[in-house]
Amino acid sequence: MPAAVAGPEIEKLIQLLARLPGLGPRSARRAALFLIKKREQVMTPLTTALQTALEKIVVCKICGNIDTQDPCTVCTDTRRDQSILVVVADVADLWALERAHAVNGRYHVLGGTLSPLDGVGPQDLSIEALVKRAHEPEVKEVILALNATVDGQTTAHYITELLTDANVKVTRLAHGVPVGGELDYLDEGTLSAAMKQRTLF
Amino acid sequence: MPAAVAGPEIEKLIQLLARLPGLGPRSARRAALFLIKKREQVMTPLTTALQTALEKIVVCKICGNIDTQDPCTVCTDTRRDQSILVVVADVADLWALERAHAVNGRYHVLGGTLSPLDGVGPQDLSIEALVKRAHEPEVKEVILALNATVDGQTTAHYITELLTDANVKVTRLAHGVPVGGELDYLDEGTLSAAMKQRTLF
Ligand SMILES: [Zn+2]
Ligand SMILES: [Zn+2]
Repeated sequence: MPAAVAGPEIEKLIQLLARLPGLGPRSARRAALFLIKKREQVMTPLTTALQTALEKIVVCKICGNIDTQDPCTVCTDTRRDQSILVVVADVADLWALERAHAVNGRYHVLGGTLSPLDGVGPQDLSIEALVKRAHEPEVKEVILALNATVDGQTTAHYITELLTDANVKVTRLAHGVPVGGELDYLDEGTLSAAMKQRTLF
Repeated sequence: MPAAVAGPEIEKLIQLLARLPGLGPRSARRAALFLIKKREQVMTPLTTALQTALEKIVVCKICGNIDTQDPCTVCTDTRRDQSILVVVADVADLWALERAHAVNGRYHVLGGTLSPLDGVGPQDLSIEALVKRAHEPEVKEVILALNATVDGQTTAHYITELLTDANVKVTRLAHGVPVGGELDYLDEGTLSAAMKQRTLF
């Protein structure tokens, strides 16, 4: 959009919207126009929500979750099983597991996975803090809920090594057929893992 | 995301982001996390850009364009050909034509197209104002730059009828092969229009 058409303020808004994952330059323009048209219904409340989030959102110093309280809602929930620590790469993974009601323990967010190619080493992740937590007497199991990718599995192995001294069982998520998944769309690795880890019907 | 995980403020932010065109609930969650992570680089400037836009953006009372001044930059640009009025459905179309440097005249934004199915009638669009502008003595040509859809063409016909009394030439965009378009992907209507309106090489 030439600056002469709509002014630098709108151009700036479009540029910033275009940085959001999922929005390109074209859809950012559409999003900006949508916001301007839905001024009262969307633009004003979104601006307020962003301001509130800027003021209130904190990173949990215990687990790395994002919340409006520190320690976070999960860490302060005493009904959760304190013996289980679920290691995730990212807050998005924590939220996904919570949506699935898949976890009754607590979490530890690494902040990424080891990736030599991207220059991500152990010091860039919250690994030292994880080892410390794994040594807390109440912790009995560390579940590595990491992506089934090369980087995810490299990270899982690295952590497993570090935890040999800790008095914990280290487990990881099962491989298998996704619920609703069709066999002929799955790769061979998944299929053979699903076959090996087959369970009684 | 259950409210218990990340607090109602983040939930609210995700809900509002999900209303943006191009973002679904899943990508809205990713966008929210991205914003929270890129607090200084993206979240704070985006919040400021939205506030500025909320304060400054106005709809041009002459043409319907969105700008930070009223009348807008296009309407106040005296170098533009005052005899040409380009009718578009939406501000997005105006911006697209400006990006293409396709127009040296002024614009008139209808605010949509006639759509009996969606209950959009002439009174819902800026048609009365268009007829008035088309009667201004300096206006010699009204270019209907409307979508080549049923609603767009219905609107074009309706406006053409209304303008029979005005002393203006009413034209519309040419049909044809899009630049870079491959013939075997085009529909028959486009192909036969492109053939009929063929030009000398
Ligand atoms: Zn926490
Ligand atoms: Zn204007």
